[in-house]
Amino acid sequence: MKFTPLSPRTPSPDVLISEVGPRDGLQSVKATMPTAHKLRWIDALVASGLREIEVCSFVPAHLMPQMADATEVVRHALTHPGLAVMALVPNLKGAEAALAAGVHKLTLPVSVSHAHSLANVRKTPDDMVAVLRRVAALRDERFPGVSIEAGLSTAFGCTLQGAVPEDEVIRLAVACAEAGANEVGLSDTTGMANPAHTRRLFTRLRTELCDRAGSAHMHNTRGLGLANCLAAYDVGVRVFDGSQGGLGGCPHAPGASGNVVTEDLVFMFEAMGVHTGVDLDKLLAARVALQAGLPGEPLYGMVPEAGLPLGWAQKGHTHEH
Amino acid sequence: MKFTPLSPRTPSPDVLISEVGPRDGLQSVKATMPTAHKLRWIDALVASGLREIEVCSFVPAHLMPQMADATEVVRHALTHPGLAVMALVPNLKGAEAALAAGVHKLTLPVSVSHAHSLANVRKTPDDMVAVLRRVAALRDERFPGVSIEAGLSTAFGCTLQGAVPEDEVIRLAVACAEAGANEVGLSDTTGMANPAHTRRLFTRLRTELCDRAGSAHMHNTRGLGLANCLAAYDVGVRVFDGSQGGLGGCPHAPGASGNVVTEDLVFMFEAMGVHTGVDLDKLLAARVALQAGLPGEPLYGMVPEAGLPLGWAQKGHTHEH
Repeated sequence: MKFTPLSPRTPSPDVLISEVGPRDGLQSVKATMPTAHKLRWIDALVASGLREIEVCSFVPAHLMPQMADATEVVRHALTHPGLAVMALVPNLKGAEAALAAGVHKLTLPVSVSHAHSLANVRKTPDDMVAVLRRVAALRDERFPGVSIEAGLSTAFGCTLQGAVPEDEVIRLAVACAEAGANEVGLSDTTGMANPAHTRRLFTRLRTELCDRAGSAHMHNTRGLGLANCLAAYDVGVRVFDGSQGGLGGCPHAPGASGNVVTEDLVFMFEAMGVHTGVDLDKLLAARVALQAGLPGEPLYGMVPEAGLPLGWAQKGHTHEH
Repeated sequence: MKFTPLSPRTPSPDVLISEVGPRDGLQSVKATMPTAHKLRWIDALVASGLREIEVCSFVPAHLMPQMADATEVVRHALTHPGLAVMALVPNLKGAEAALAAGVHKLTLPVSVSHAHSLANVRKTPDDMVAVLRRVAALRDERFPGVSIEAGLSTAFGCTLQGAVPEDEVIRLAVACAEAGANEVGLSDTTGMANPAHTRRLFTRLRTELCDRAGSAHMHNTRGLGLANCLAAYDVGVRVFDGSQGGLGGCPHAPGASGNVVTEDLVFMFEAMGVHTGVDLDKLLAARVALQAGLPGEPLYGMVPEAGLPLGWAQKGHTHEH
């Protein structure tokens, strides 16, 4: 076996909700959230109990002005004890900047679809694995405590090439782990996953990668976001990406949110008695900070609209599961 | 064993999608859809491959003018060969009218929550079981081919009384079957179910009622509609209620649809390779007939908004599952 077996120990809380809004969400909207608002929003997210946040990406400011304050955002996020501060980096240069800023975790996107990879980063998937290898070498040499995640985008299908072969997803996942990724997650970038597909692919990922099998980043483009998270949970996945208010994630159509809404995701798990460590009331309150920084931007979420059910109380309190 | 064991035979198609829009949807909106439009909409639903439709309810016209044309709607629906024509009846008088009109199936709502039952029909749950017994006696005597379904509403929680004990749900389900119901389904009237709860309760229902365990009528009030359908499917449920465009189902908040959207439900199953017998393109086309009869009424649905994914083709065609 190439990688360490999966631990039989149940983590506490039961699942880790990884918030991607400050990166994935904010770089998908036209407006740029002012830095002071970003910091207040991150503070509110941390106050709700979230323990991992993708706070920014390290990309050229002229290409993505929304992320120009990445270093300052990381510096602030690092003041929260116990928070895993994560940044997305598309290349070695970005990784150098993120590592210098002091992030705990890097996430590097590797698109499984050739067509999407070329269109997005002008590199083939295997070229991106080579980038990951160089980033891992830099980490090993100078920042040995930092974790690297490879996020396999278009893992469930691609809007450019259609179907994405499952064998190719697994081949690239293994290649990423061998290149030095500590975790390899799967992203349904295009909202094409279904629960059967999700179970099959995460089962294979966990069989092949053992403890390096990473998070489920599902989209709600066609309404299956939570059903797919449930499906992934059923086969052992315990880390889930969400975005507050469903911000970001390349929605296909107006009103059709892309990213899974963190509030709804936390609600599903807590209602099931699966502990997230997130206080749902405080998480809902953090929407105020998000909206303050992006006035007029539509936010999604069924739980925020409908409210919590009568008699709701989170695990450890009086709620009947 | 009181009831016949569940058949090990897999039905073909794999699941039955029961469309409730013409009853549950139309009686929840303020406008009254003109009869000619109802008939065209039902025709379009049948053309998509739906084989069971709750076409109306038999209630006093002064209380619910939207359903005043129930007999005419049933008469038209009966012209479609192979379609199971279903009507909701709240009492013996409604059942007499529905049976006289020639329906194939009656559905009688029995609320598990005392508070909800009293508020809704001014009867206790056990009084409703007594009504069901009288309806079944009438059926046995004069309409022996007609099937009776009891729909246990507020089975997963109630907005008036909060939690609803699972033992009480099962007790009433058994009482309904003993009173003559051929099927007993569970309704998440208030959008309070979660996947764990759904699995637990349907597992108990199927254990107790065997082949009389009925459909899952889930709501999407808090975004869990499809996840709960998946959960029910996982424990063996094969009949699912949906409403085209998410019409009806007592939404709690603007934009928060109540009923599971049939289009999204069919998409989930077909994408998983679970055959519904419904042609999704034709089902999407039926929205035009619905909207024509209810101009300006908001329709929901993620698949209708996002469109079908690239390369989509239903089972039996070229789609890769």
